[in-house]
Amino acid sequence: MPIKSVDSVPMEPVRLGEGAYRQVLIGPDEGPHFALRRFVIEPGGYLPKHTNTVEHEQYVLRGRARIGIGDEIFEVGPGDVVFIPAGVPHWYRCISQEPFEFLCAVPNKEDTLQVLEETAPD
Amino acid sequence: MPIKSVDSVPMEPVRLGEGAYRQVLIGPDEGPHFALRRFVIEPGGYLPKHTNTVEHEQYVLRGRARIGIGDEIFEVGPGDVVFIPAGVPHWYRCISQEPFEFLCAVPNKEDTLQVLEETAPD
Repeated sequence: MPIKSVDSVPMEPVRLGEGAYRQVLIGPDEGPHFALRRFVIEPGGYLPKHTNTVEHEQYVLRGRARIGIGDEIFEVGPGDVVFIPAGVPHWYRCISQEPFEFLCAVPNKEDTLQVLEETAPD
Repeated sequence: MPIKSVDSVPMEPVRLGEGAYRQVLIGPDEGPHFALRRFVIEPGGYLPKHTNTVEHEQYVLRGRARIGIGDEIFEVGPGDVVFIPAGVPHWYRCISQEPFEFLCAVPNKEDTLQVLEETAPD
């Protein structure tokens, strides 16, 4: 697969929160060490507070969001780089009129996701 | 460093080719398994044909380029996803009036770079 367009990759709804979708751009079957995914959160959508057992390396492509990482809250937009260490609680809320889009790379290790709060974050 | 703007990260010239710059967005000292970098190649600039001993997972942010991967040549632009397996010869030539910008993630493994052709690619 040397080259593919992001638009050619199927978008699957995330079964968490609201208005969130995921594309696997380079999967664990393609990249030997880590996977590259794109997430899209629609205006007003969110991913609730949760933890993963793998770290996230992220890059914001479009839109704006409030992100909670540990006890801190950040507002992010295009060109922002986000690092979420393994095990640290985090959440996302799209606060722009356009979708919030970001890349998220994770190592090819088993990931257990634990939801900490089902309700929508601020 | 949970959040940083790409504009706050120092840009260093790549000692290869012409008009190419690199930013380390999340380094091997920050991410436990892989590093996230951004490359910028100015209009007309290039990276010559070379190999690395680690794979590259890339995402094009801006501009257009011709890329050689193995024996194939591709033209890429924003939203294109590029996978370059370890050991496969590759090169880049910016063909747009604006800089060609892409993210490039690599595993935290020792990388040996070998230049195969010093001259500029087409």
